[in-house]
Amino acid sequence: MNSFMKKTIGLTLAAALVATAGFAASHTAKSSNAAVNARHAQMQMVAYNIGMLGAVAKGEVEFNAEMVNSAATNMKNLAAMNTASLWIDGTAQGEVDGSRAKSAVWSDRAGFIAKFKQMEDASVTLMAATSVEDVQAGMGALGGSCKACHETYRGPKN
Amino acid sequence: MNSFMKKTIGLTLAAALVATAGFAASHTAKSSNAAVNARHAQMQMVAYNIGMLGAVAKGEVEFNAEMVNSAATNMKNLAAMNTASLWIDGTAQGEVDGSRAKSAVWSDRAGFIAKFKQMEDASVTLMAATSVEDVQAGMGALGGSCKACHETYRGPKN
Repeated sequence: MNSFMKKTIGLTLAAALVATAGFAASHTAKSSNAAVNARHAQMQMVAYNIGMLGAVAKGEVEFNAEMVNSAATNMKNLAAMNTASLWIDGTAQGEVDGSRAKSAVWSDRAGFIAKFKQMEDASVTLMAATSVEDVQAGMGALGGSCKACHETYRGPKN
Repeated sequence: MNSFMKKTIGLTLAAALVATAGFAASHTAKSSNAAVNARHAQMQMVAYNIGMLGAVAKGEVEFNAEMVNSAATNMKNLAAMNTASLWIDGTAQGEVDGSRAKSAVWSDRAGFIAKFKQMEDASVTLMAATSVEDVQAGMGALGGSCKACHETYRGPKN
């Protein structure tokens, strides 16, 4: 690494590196906790966007095509996250504090990824919404993808 | 909204809706706080992935093409988030607790988006890394995009 890179990272990312550090493959408690926290951040963003779309679907907020497209785009990006570096080995429920990931996430990774694909497809449909009715119609598939994944891959509350 | 949708949302998303509720356009304190929290979750995920890539670049962890590709893919997805529903009106620093977003985010949205595009491009380059040297080479542009955006669009600590 050259000095520019060191300086850049030093100046801008020191806090980030201190906060997360570690690496997936090392399976330290530190990296395991960081992975769980990152997954929770992902789900927090999912909840934010679902909240926006749900408010429109329920008529609590007026339909706004730009905002709906933005929220749906972000749902798509969240759904398209690669699970390899997030659901790393050693981070199932019981293996690390805060995790609710069932062992099925590891024993059936393809099925787990397929649920995210379901969420991604539902999000893409919502991106094209031009009316509140479109949002309402799209929310079934989106909410269904959440439910389907949680039922199979998420354990009980800790 | 039909009963299936209501049930689905009720069963799976109750916690999410309670936690975030509100909607961008309403500019309530609740939705403003939710937006800031969602942005912080986005940055937390950025920090997690930068931490992974940085650990490889610094030689703390062995290069693993799958993990590097995964972290870089997720950085790309984080960079590609639509800012419209995240940096909503009324959520600049001083307007809502916890925000460090400068008014330039609103007065120069195109420039702000261009910084994320810079981050996205750097992430795409890193997705193709096949060696630790590739990761080191790619980190300069990635870290540079963080720095460039923070300098112009992020205010001092609260």
